[in-house]
Formats: sequence, structure tokens, C-alpha cells
Amino acid sequence: MAKINSNYDKLSAGYLFPEISRRVKVYSEKNPGIEILRLGVGNTTEALPSEIIKGLHASVDKLSNVKTYTGYGDEQGNKNLREAIVSYYKDLGAEILPDEVFVSDGAKCDVANIQSIFSNECKVAVQDPAYPVYVDTNVIAGRTGKNTGVTYDGLVYMGCNLENNFFPSLPTEKVDLIYICSPNNPTGAVATREQLKEFVDYAIKNKSVIIFDAAYNEFISDSTLPKTIYVIPGAKECAIEINSFSKSAGFTGVRLGWSIVPKNCVCEDASIGKLNSMWNRRQTTMFNGASNIVQDGGVAALSKEGLKECKEIIEYYMENSRIIKKGLEEKGLKVVSGGVNAPYLWVKTPNGMKSWDLFDKMLTEAHVVITPGSGFGPSGEGYFRVSAFGHRENVIKAVESIKNNLKL
Amino acid sequence: MAKINSNYDKLSAGYLFPEISRRVKVYSEKNPGIEILRLGVGNTTEALPSEIIKGLHASVDKLSNVKTYTGYGDEQGNKNLREAIVSYYKDLGAEILPDEVFVSDGAKCDVANIQSIFSNECKVAVQDPAYPVYVDTNVIAGRTGKNTGVTYDGLVYMGCNLENNFFPSLPTEKVDLIYICSPNNPTGAVATREQLKEFVDYAIKNKSVIIFDAAYNEFISDSTLPKTIYVIPGAKECAIEINSFSKSAGFTGVRLGWSIVPKNCVCEDASIGKLNSMWNRRQTTMFNGASNIVQDGGVAALSKEGLKECKEIIEYYMENSRIIKKGLEEKGLKVVSGGVNAPYLWVKTPNGMKSWDLFDKMLTEAHVVITPGSGFGPSGEGYFRVSAFGHRENVIKAVESIKNNLKL
Repeated sequence: MAKINSNYDKLSAGYLFPEISRRVKVYSEKNPGIEILRLGVGNTTEALPSEIIKGLHASVDKLSNVKTYTGYGDEQGNKNLREAIVSYYKDLGAEILPDEVFVSDGAKCDVANIQSIFSNECKVAVQDPAYPVYVDTNVIAGRTGKNTGVTYDGLVYMGCNLENNFFPSLPTEKVDLIYICSPNNPTGAVATREQLKEFVDYAIKNKSVIIFDAAYNEFISDSTLPKTIYVIPGAKECAIEINSFSKSAGFTGVRLGWSIVPKNCVCEDASIGKLNSMWNRRQTTMFNGASNIVQDGGVAALSKEGLKECKEIIEYYMENSRIIKKGLEEKGLKVVSGGVNAPYLWVKTPNGMKSWDLFDKMLTEAHVVITPGSGFGPSGEGYFRVSAFGHRENVIKAVESIKNNLKL
Repeated sequence: MAKINSNYDKLSAGYLFPEISRRVKVYSEKNPGIEILRLGVGNTTEALPSEIIKGLHASVDKLSNVKTYTGYGDEQGNKNLREAIVSYYKDLGAEILPDEVFVSDGAKCDVANIQSIFSNECKVAVQDPAYPVYVDTNVIAGRTGKNTGVTYDGLVYMGCNLENNFFPSLPTEKVDLIYICSPNNPTGAVATREQLKEFVDYAIKNKSVIIFDAAYNEFISDSTLPKTIYVIPGAKECAIEINSFSKSAGFTGVRLGWSIVPKNCVCEDASIGKLNSMWNRRQTTMFNGASNIVQDGGVAALSKEGLKECKEIIEYYMENSRIIKKGLEEKGLKVVSGGVNAPYLWVKTPNGMKSWDLFDKMLTEAHVVITPGSGFGPSGEGYFRVSAFGHRENVIKAVESIKNNLKL
């Protein structure tokens, strides 16, 4: 008599983004003909640059010829891509070994799966608000108690708010796994070297492990801000970093990411090399490598020409960000974080409105989709996230519609 | 003080295929210049057919244009691919709904992850020998006791041997999750309708769930043998089926697969719809969809022309299979199962040799890589698996080398 994993029943009804899609769908079906303007999901919209397209086509061509066809590759990723990632880190000032790099089909999978190499007894701390995957995957694994409707018992919420400029203080209790995302999704806040150093020192002292999500690092233009946690002394002893081609190279649909699990990264009962070899065992047992076509696209994205072209697209989205910020502020809305060095803007709801109420109001009055802050955790209540990913004319249209149609 | 998931320490040293690669690498480095002939991993070698190549190129082109570019798609897969899979099942005589189809980046991931929606208290039964992923993922999840070196305590091994023609009898004790693979990896045995019906009846009676791995179904040419478990009455109430484009369309490196979780599939504490919605929650939370390029390749593979071209490649591998069978038998080796309706041959080691000893002997004497049967479970000891995936001239070379160089 098979039974289910009852931890699933603790989860809130829907994963945030499918719930947004559902509400938009219901509204669209009731109001056919109305154009929905999307500033919700952080979904890339611009065409892939020519260098990447060239790389993808060349890869497909290889598969059409028996002499160049490839089947299963290494689960950890192709050698040339792992080396390109190593060299990418070198340019950022961090030394990573090729066998510390694990290529995947996207950061979401890695962020979701990394917890599985740790004990279910681990106490987990997340920034609040946070990308829901950090929380939900630990709920599913059984590392939390019951869902109070707003929080999960047993989870440590490190509040990010106006007072601390949206980067949390160290946890006051001892925690084992610490999720940090910088540039942050959803607040757009970027951690400084000093802020990260505090956490690295805490982790080393307490034998905690930091899961560092750097998926938006390419949006940092301020060179004093760290693009990888590995520029912080000691980080290789306590931090696993996850990154993605989704936002930096437009691979949201193409799917490619990576994790760095340093050999020196240790914890209470894992000496040098152990966490690296456990993640290697996890990936070789439960994953079969990212698509060979997509990996070739990744190599092209990390080439000199590829990086240059990708940078132009990032600039394009950052110009969107400036347009949105200006528009919202003209409307009298308060952008409290983000929009600079990050493709997200974190905005206070007007008149103390609840996040989902503002979501519905935005949708019905301005036909604009935003992401309700409360979907990212209790400290997100009273805020909403605006994504700068979008085609320029749609972004302008959305901003104009907010300015003209939203009733404040 | 973060601790690790100590279940990892129960696992045998290496996942089977990386261990094979390691031994081959060591041998090659010690013996440079020797050509290694591979009949080990079931890795496709033939170029993708033109219809698929066309589909992949067209998809890449779409990404080069802002008007046709796509980012995140549905985590469950694109609508047209899900519908193509539904229609594929229709042709096999099974009725599947589009929202029972979950597209993934390959069957290995689904086979590995599906257990996570079930309770850790579930008793698990596997065919023995079996694809190691079934076993290892349940060990990692904590559904077994200690590793005795040959078996894991608490796991039910359903022996497949000469006596039962390599399909197991029903478990004598009550089990909750039952992994069945047909055509079988590694034995190449194909379950009949009657054999599957026995298991479906058992599962319904005991509220067990069958995880049915059909990754090799396109190698079945005998029309009396079931290509999907859903042609068995009642199977939609108790079985989850997983399939792949890897072997049928040469996507081992391209990466695409799917799972069917029927709405009617239930278990002890899951009523109608529950398992389907749990898997949906799992996939939307922990996965971000298969690559859009690859999904378009999948649609091409399931088109009329694509299916026809793929069939020709399957025929090619099956001709390899006949060549291998003939050669091994001429050498005096006993092919006890497979090679017909399946791309694997299951062979008795000569003179009661241990599987890994035969592996080393094959490698050093004939320079041929096979897969040691014991890597698939205790009942695999004394056998080895030969894969029919390979380029014809290499297959012939390998068979000749076995005939000429292996010392029996």
C-alpha cells in the first residue's frame, strides 16, 4: 500500500509563477481582446545573439554526421564548457578547478536539488523575501514543520527590509544551510563584499554551508560589487555557488546552468573533497548531462564575441529598468530597492495594500502583470516585484498603462 | 553545523557506468595506441535523421528572431509536443490525456525523481538485475537499510533468471513501489501482456504503484508484445510510465524524455488526481522544462516522416544485435536473453567467471568493453550485458576481436 510524501501537503497551494499564470489566464478568458502587458516573470524576450546562434547551428550540424555525432557526454558537462566556466571565473578573480564545475540544465534544478546531499536534520535559513524554490524544496524534503499560512515552522527567515537595506543580519540562532541570492531575486539588492564576508566568516565558524545563487551576477555594472562569492576569502571552504545562462545569455528556454562545489567546501561531517564527491555522485546517478547542443551554445556564449554580444542585451534590459523606475516614480510609487545592478525592481504597494490585491488591481486596471511580493515570503507582503525583462515597446506600453490607468 | 545525507555512504563505490569509464581510462593510459572497442554503455552512435535535424535548425532559427524567440515554456512541456506524445500513445492503442504527459530532459531524471513523491516508508521492489538508478535513488532517499556488499537491506529483489525466462514472479511479500523495465535493461527480456497483467492486478489489489520504464519500447517488432503498459486493463489506475527519445531517436546527448502520471493512478492515501498533481508540483517547483530547441526536435521525431526515419536507425541497431548474437554463439558464449525486440544481449560468463573478472578479461584480451552483469544487482553476477548500439564497422571489429583474441 504505497503512501505519498506527505510533506507535499504542507506546501502552499501553488508554486508562485503557475499561480500567476492561472490568474492571468482566468482574466484573459473573461476579457478577450484585452492585451496583457507582462512585467511579472523574469523571462527574457530578446533574440539570441549571432555568436550563440552560430554555435547552436554548428552543434546541430555535428549531430547530422556520423563522424561528429555525440551521444551521452559526461554528466558533469563537456570539458570545453567546464574550462570556459573556469576561465570565466578567472576573469572575475576567482580560481575554480574544472572538476569543481558541474554543468546542468539550469540553475533552478541545481538550486532545487543541492539540499538533497545534506541531512534532513539541517536547519535552513533563507533571505526573506526569497526565490520560492529554496523554501519549497526544503519543505518537500521534510526540513520544516507545518505551514502556518505565512511561514513554515522550523525555517529561519532572515528578513530583508528597508531598515537593513534589503540585506539580512546574521542569524541569531545557529543555522546549517544558508541560501543567499545576490543580485537578489526579488528585491534586486546586491550584497557588498563586506556583507558577504560576514556570512562567510559565520559559515566557517559554525560549519554551515552557504548556497549562493548568482544567477543575476552579469547585471552588476558597479565593479566594487562581487559577481561571485569566491572573491571573498574563505568562501571556497563554505560556499556552493549556482549560476545560469538564463538571464545572462537569454537561455531561459534553452536551459543551461552550473554549480560550483569546491573541493575545500566542508561541513560538520564532511571533510575536504566529500561534498564535491557527493554532488558528483548525485549528478551521475540522477542526471544525464545537459543537452550537447545547448552546451555548445554555452561555449559560444562564453567566447569573447559571445560575452560582448550578451553584454549588449543586458544593457538593453537595464535600460528597461531605468524606464520602469522613472515611470513608477512619476506615478508616485516607491521603488525601495533594485533596478540598478539588477533586473528587478522592488516596489512598495500604495496605501498599505496587500500584494495579491495590488496584483489583481494592476491586472484589471492597467492590464499589467507584476509579481506579488508576498509570494516570496512574509517580508514580501506589501511589496511587489517588477521585472525589467521585456521587449522595449511592451515595457513602455506597460509603464504608460500603469501611469494612465492604475487608480491610486 | 551542517551535516550530510548519510544515506550516500550506503551506496556502493561508484555508479556503474562511471566505474566502467574509470577502468577503461586506466587501461588506455597504460596501453596507449590500443583501440578500445565499445559494446558497453547503451550509447547511440548514428547521425540524427534529416527530419529531426531540420526541426532542430528551424528551432534555433526561431531563437534568432525577436518575433519567434521563446523563453520559459510550461514546465510540463510544450503543448504541441505533449499532443504529439498523446497521439503516439493513441497509435499504440492507449488513451492518454495531454495533462497526464510531463516532458523532461530525459528518462534518467524522471526515473530518479519519481520516487520523491512517495513516502520514505514505502517498500520498494526491483527486478534483479535492474538499471542501477532505481536502486541508488531509493538508497539515497533512505528507503533501504545497509549495504551488505551485494544487496541493500529492506529492498525486495525480484530475481530474473533462466528459470523464469528473465521475468520475475510476483513478490511474495507486500510491496509498495514496483520498478519494471520492458524491454529490459540489462537482460533484453520483453514482458508479455499476460506477465504485465499479473503485476497490474497485484498493484491494484495491494494499492501499489508500478514505475514502468519503457525506454526501449521502439525496439519491439513483435506486435503481440506490449509497447506501453497502458494497453493492459487497469494500468492507468496503478502505473506511471517513463519513456525517452534517447534510444528511439538518438537523443542520448540531445536529452528528452517524458513521464505519464495518469489522473486515475492512485495509492493508499492518494485519491484520483492526487499523484498527477503531486508530480506536477514536483516538476513546476524543481524543474524548468526541457530545452525549447530539443522539444522541437522531439516534435520532428514524432512526425510521420521522423518516425519512419527513426525506425530505420532502430533496424540498423537490431542488425548489429543479430551480428553480435551470431558471433558470440560461434565463440561458444551463451546468449541467454535479449537481442530480439531489444538492443541488449544478456550473456552467461564462461566457466563460472565473475562478471567484473570477465569485464577485465574482455578489456585486456579483446579490448572490448562490455557491462558486467553484477553491476545491475546480485542476480546479474555471472552474466554480462552486450549493447547493440554502435557503428557497424566497430561492432564487427569488436565481435571479430572477441572471436580471435578472447581466451576461453
